Amino acid sequence: MPRVRHSPAPGSVAKTLVENLEGRQSVFAALQARQRRVEVILISHGAHMEKLDDLLALAEERAVPIRRVDKSELDALAHGATHGGVMAVCSPKPRLKGAELQSFVAALREPALLLLLEGVEDARNLGFTIRSAEALGAHAVLVKKHLWDLDAIEVARPSSGAYERLPLAQIDSVEPLRAMQKTGVQLVGCIAGARRTIYDVEFARPTIIAVGGEKRGLSGAVRDICDCFATIPTAGDGTSLSLSHAAAVALAEAMRQRRT
Amino acid sequence: MPRVRHSPAPGSVAKTLVENLEGRQSVFAALQARQRRVEVILISHGAHMEKLDDLLALAEERAVPIRRVDKSELDALAHGATHGGVMAVCSPKPRLKGAELQSFVAALREPALLLLLEGVEDARNLGFTIRSAEALGAHAVLVKKHLWDLDAIEVARPSSGAYERLPLAQIDSVEPLRAMQKTGVQLVGCIAGARRTIYDVEFARPTIIAVGGEKRGLSGAVRDICDCFATIPTAGDGTSLSLSHAAAVALAEAMRQRRT
Repeated sequence: MPRVRHSPAPGSVAKTLVENLEGRQSVFAALQARQRRVEVILISHGAHMEKLDDLLALAEERAVPIRRVDKSELDALAHGATHGGVMAVCSPKPRLKGAELQSFVAALREPALLLLLEGVEDARNLGFTIRSAEALGAHAVLVKKHLWDLDAIEVARPSSGAYERLPLAQIDSVEPLRAMQKTGVQLVGCIAGARRTIYDVEFARPTIIAVGGEKRGLSGAVRDICDCFATIPTAGDGTSLSLSHAAAVALAEAMRQRRT
Repeated sequence: MPRVRHSPAPGSVAKTLVENLEGRQSVFAALQARQRRVEVILISHGAHMEKLDDLLALAEERAVPIRRVDKSELDALAHGATHGGVMAVCSPKPRLKGAELQSFVAALREPALLLLLEGVEDARNLGFTIRSAEALGAHAVLVKKHLWDLDAIEVARPSSGAYERLPLAQIDSVEPLRAMQKTGVQLVGCIAGARRTIYDVEFARPTIIAVGGEKRGLSGAVRDICDCFATIPTAGDGTSLSLSHAAAVALAEAMRQRRT
C-alpha cells in the first residue's frame, strides 16, 4: 500500500497546528505509520518503562526526542486518564484530498476497497469503524469535512492504532467519487430495503462501500450517483445494525469474496 | 421464537427488585417483548406527546398505568439526560438459566444460533453486541454472571431495544454448554490464528458461536469443550476486530449460509 506523507501546502493552517497523542498504542502506531511528524514523546516519571521497550527503540530509530516529565504535566495536557504515562506532540493526521486520493487509488496494487461514511456523529463509533475497516481490508476511509471537528483523541482511542495507520480522505463533494467512478471504481450504497443484498454484489471489482448514519442514511447527493444499492439481510422487523457494524459486515463480505 | 416469561422462584431476590427503563425506545420495546412486568410508565409534563402515540396505545393494551410527573422527578430517577421524558419502573430483565435454556433451545423452530460472550467489560459494547446479535439472527446471547453487574441502562441504550427483545441467558459454568452439545448443538470458538476460517464452518447446524474478550480471549474452560475453532480473516498484522465487531461478522456469515 502506498504510504501517505504529511505534506501540507505552504502557509496552510495545518502546517502550524500540533496535536497530542495519548497512550502507548497510539504513539507507537504513529511512529510506525509515519503519516505524522512526531516532535517529541513525553513519558511520565512513573510510567512502566519495561512495557515501552519497543516504543523507545522505534523512537530512537526515527530520531524522535523523548522527554521525561511529571505525571501532573501529562495529566494537564491529556483529555482523560488513559494516557498511561505516554503522550506525543505531533503534526495532525494528514487527509487525502482530491487529486491525492486519485493518486492513492491508482497506486494500489490490488482493486481498491474504500469505505465512505456519512452521518457519523460520535467519535468513539468512528474510531471503532476505522479499526474494523483496517482489519477487514479497506485501503482508506472517506469522511466528510465536519468529521474532522470530532475530538481526534476520542476517535483514536477505540481504533487500537488504526487511526494512525489507515489513510483517511476528506470528501467535500461527490466530485472525488465521480472521478473514481470514471476510472472503474463502483460505488455501492448500503441501504435498508434494497432488492439486492451485499451477497449479490461483485466486490472483487474496485469498490467504494458507502454507509450512512442511522438517522438519515445516505445523502441524496451520494444516492444519486451510486452504481448500485445493496442491503445487509437482517433477522426481522425493528432490528437494525449500527453504522459501524453494518460497515464491518459489508467489508467482511468484500474480503470473503476477494479471498476466493 | 418461544417467549421468555418472567417467573422468578417464590422468595427469590429477583422478585423484590425493580429496575428503571429510560427512553421511549426501551420502554416501548419492553412492552412489546413482554419479558418484564412493567409496573408504571412515567412521562414528564414537557414530553412530546405526539411522538408517544404508539407507546400510549400499547401501554393501554397491556393495562400499564401512566403517571405524568415533573421533569425534575425523572431527572432525579434517571442515570443520564437521554430519557426524553419517558421512563418505566419494571421487574428486572429475566435471565434464562440451566434447564430453561435447554427448553428454550428445544422449542426453537429452526436450528439454534446462539452467541456466547466472554470477557465483555463495557456496558456500551455489550449493548451494541446484543443489537447486532438480534439483527443477525441470534436467538439468544449467553453471558457470564458478572455481566449482570453492568449498569442495565447503559447496556440497553445502545441496543436500540434489542436488550428488551432478545433473550439473555446466564451461564455460570460450562455445564449448560455441554448439555446443549449433547443435543447436537456445535460450539464454535472464534479465535485468532485458527487454521479454519468462519467460512469453512457449517453454520446451518445448531450452533453456539463463542467470542472472547480482547484481553484474554476465550477461557480455557470453554476452549476445552469447543467442537471446532475458527478465525475471522483479517487484513494484516497488528489489525484486529473488537469483540462486538467480531461477533457481528461471525453471525452475519452464519446468516448468509442459512439463507442459501
